[in-house]
Amino acid sequence: MPEAERSPVAPEILLRLREAAGTGGWVDAPDEVAPYLDEQRGRYRGATPAVLRPGTTKAVAEIVRICAETGTPLVPQGGNTGLVGGAVPAPDSTEILLNLGRLNRIREVDAAGGTITAEAGCLLANLQRAAEEVDRLLPLSLGAEGTCQIGGNLATNAGGTQVMRYGSARSLALGLEVVLPDGRIWNGLKRLVKDNAGYDLRDLFIGSEGTLGVITAAVLRLFPRPRQSVTALAAASSVADAVKLYAALAAASGDRMTGCELMSERALAFALHHLPGATAPFSRAHPWTVLMEFHGGAGDDLGAAVESGFAEALELGPALDAIVAQSAAQEQSLWRLRESIPDAQKREGASIKHDISVPTSRMASFTTRADQEVESALPGVRVVVFGHLADGNLHFNLSQPEDMSADVFEANRDRLSRIVHDLAVSEGGSISAEHGIGRMKQADLARYKSAEELDIMRAIKGAIDPRGILNPGKVL
Amino acid sequence: MPEAERSPVAPEILLRLREAAGTGGWVDAPDEVAPYLDEQRGRYRGATPAVLRPGTTKAVAEIVRICAETGTPLVPQGGNTGLVGGAVPAPDSTEILLNLGRLNRIREVDAAGGTITAEAGCLLANLQRAAEEVDRLLPLSLGAEGTCQIGGNLATNAGGTQVMRYGSARSLALGLEVVLPDGRIWNGLKRLVKDNAGYDLRDLFIGSEGTLGVITAAVLRLFPRPRQSVTALAAASSVADAVKLYAALAAASGDRMTGCELMSERALAFALHHLPGATAPFSRAHPWTVLMEFHGGAGDDLGAAVESGFAEALELGPALDAIVAQSAAQEQSLWRLRESIPDAQKREGASIKHDISVPTSRMASFTTRADQEVESALPGVRVVVFGHLADGNLHFNLSQPEDMSADVFEANRDRLSRIVHDLAVSEGGSISAEHGIGRMKQADLARYKSAEELDIMRAIKGAIDPRGILNPGKVL
Repeated sequence: MPEAERSPVAPEILLRLREAAGTGGWVDAPDEVAPYLDEQRGRYRGATPAVLRPGTTKAVAEIVRICAETGTPLVPQGGNTGLVGGAVPAPDSTEILLNLGRLNRIREVDAAGGTITAEAGCLLANLQRAAEEVDRLLPLSLGAEGTCQIGGNLATNAGGTQVMRYGSARSLALGLEVVLPDGRIWNGLKRLVKDNAGYDLRDLFIGSEGTLGVITAAVLRLFPRPRQSVTALAAASSVADAVKLYAALAAASGDRMTGCELMSERALAFALHHLPGATAPFSRAHPWTVLMEFHGGAGDDLGAAVESGFAEALELGPALDAIVAQSAAQEQSLWRLRESIPDAQKREGASIKHDISVPTSRMASFTTRADQEVESALPGVRVVVFGHLADGNLHFNLSQPEDMSADVFEANRDRLSRIVHDLAVSEGGSISAEHGIGRMKQADLARYKSAEELDIMRAIKGAIDPRGILNPGKVL
Repeated sequence: MPEAERSPVAPEILLRLREAAGTGGWVDAPDEVAPYLDEQRGRYRGATPAVLRPGTTKAVAEIVRICAETGTPLVPQGGNTGLVGGAVPAPDSTEILLNLGRLNRIREVDAAGGTITAEAGCLLANLQRAAEEVDRLLPLSLGAEGTCQIGGNLATNAGGTQVMRYGSARSLALGLEVVLPDGRIWNGLKRLVKDNAGYDLRDLFIGSEGTLGVITAAVLRLFPRPRQSVTALAAASSVADAVKLYAALAAASGDRMTGCELMSERALAFALHHLPGATAPFSRAHPWTVLMEFHGGAGDDLGAAVESGFAEALELGPALDAIVAQSAAQEQSLWRLRESIPDAQKREGASIKHDISVPTSRMASFTTRADQEVESALPGVRVVVFGHLADGNLHFNLSQPEDMSADVFEANRDRLSRIVHDLAVSEGGSISAEHGIGRMKQADLARYKSAEELDIMRAIKGAIDPRGILNPGKVL
């Protein structure tokens, strides 16, 4: 309904929506609305007649019901930390912005049963803390955890640094509460590990980026808290060796590795250059560095298993050097190197980012080919690679050549991204490993997905949201 | 299309199907057809004009295309080991039976990347072996593994004994190849741990019991093979204590428990009585027995961690007695006790079986209430409980009273099942934890699911299979 989207929302509809949102649930002063309309990297800025911030699931349902009845499109939004324009309206739109931030109660923590039931607007970091308080682990962990919200994490199937052991957000969700596009509430808040009664609707809503329903609450799995952790950093001469190193240490540690992050020489150099007080971990620079984390129980000698794994890896070849952190402070400083890369890259000028995944056995060939092709397409481009090695998920980012203006570099965006995405797909990979499609990769989705897959996706969207009111122009 | 289903399939359509199935792909002699139409427990027997056994995905696609074009319903079938009537046609039907057993090639084993790509008709046990041959673990493990097929495992989201650590079949599948209801092939054979490009179609097909598409191949995850395993058996005085014991040992072992099976006193007594050569594990009978398995890496002292966990559990109370197996033979004999329960129960006469799940924190209350209610509904009924404790998945089975005929007992089936299912749902549980819905639990699904959930399921079925040709009368 492109016409309907652009025509202004009638005042009487806005009045009804305002009433449904309840006290404190309505924002329309331009300066207060602005922060909800800007995506953090500044690439997307939207327009809206009003930001609604309801405080209960019932109020969300009533808002969606009014929108369904009147054909008013709306955009659900969590912490607005996404990177693909999925949670902000279009620039010329009259879409209602439905922010879930006030829906932020933790409804129940079941320590014995290993679950937490939380509303969509809960900050991820608050849920991690609530789990910790009952001696449990909520293993979803990502850069934005202090500001992102669990509803958004689920709507986008967020990944992060512990996916290799615990899976993406999808794997942690046992149940959902969802407001459907007609304003009804689906109570799927099961706390069951196993439930084979009917179609898997939960996983359909998860990762659908607010286009099929509005997630208002979820039951998440909690795990035993690790009694000890070991963090290590190792150097490798190639991606192939980094992959071997990962496999060797996964085996040596008895499959107790929970994180495995890869950094290219330039990515690490950027971090060392821009992170205040950072010192080089090794006596010389290496082509690739791998950061690993292991979790173990009380009775283990996890450190010894890891140390002996590295001793063997150094002797057999895949490791050029290795450090096992000896203190919590050292662990933190190793992780800070990895975590500071995105910010460091920002300080090096304009960047073009990619969030691809390939099978781990194709990572070496992908990085070699992609490196060569982008360099020959734009000589001097600075490739900055980091990401989640065990998941085959690389942030294959490009920083502007040192002697080129940001604008000229930016003009090459589509051409360079095409090269990277074509290569990822040709290696059996994905153009979006963890960030989703949003508005940014909509055209790419249409380009790279088969007709069969697009047809099923469209059929599902049409069946569940026949009026197309939920997050129009996103994903499909 | 109930009318169309019952009218005979025209000879010219059968001729086209026969041609599409290719050499060796057509079975219509009544004695050869019979085994495909009988479910193993004898509760479902179907009718079909022909069994098709195509040998390639392309042939499957051509068969489905002909069925779609002519409105001919068909029933996909794997190893026919299901227990809910999901893989056999209706007794009065003229549905084509599409058996996937000849589609049984392993297409690729990627040991380094940790994946295996296999066609639907591969026996689960063969895939486990193929993984073992490259020193990897395919952790899907269930009673029927020698005869069930991976396509059926995925279509029903099979569970089994290692779900607590590795998840159900769903968690092991990275990608699928599916023949859609219009006969097109969706190639979703990704080998990616992370892929957030578009809706999660994979999980929609998994567990949909052949009603949305025919799974013809899959990419499954492989894991490092455990370097050591520890098996233990412990006794507890109540389900509540059994749950505590599980939590204590999960923590003590550093989250390395991979299986945790619960057996009631009667379930174990049946096994001991009917399993040739079996001896009682403890000096006296206990109300509940828990079988646990732990996996560890080469460097661990897993045995010591488990031993000290049990020492503490014996001292603090949840454990009444405990045995840690000291040899592979002893491990096997402990597992045989658990595995022989279904067969032992069969020897005790007629049974009414339930495959429910509840949150682990509600297991104690569920078993107590269910025990009382079925006993008061049918005095003398023998409750036989066993199942996957860590998953909250109980096979809450009933054996006929010793002084009652099987027929009289059978006449109480619906009434007793209603009690058990009502209680499971009232405790936040599911009426089908791992066996699915099929034809058996269709009415239950309609009874226990909300209108919202049923509506979405129907909308999806209508959107993907608008003519309703795939596995009619199952699930919905």
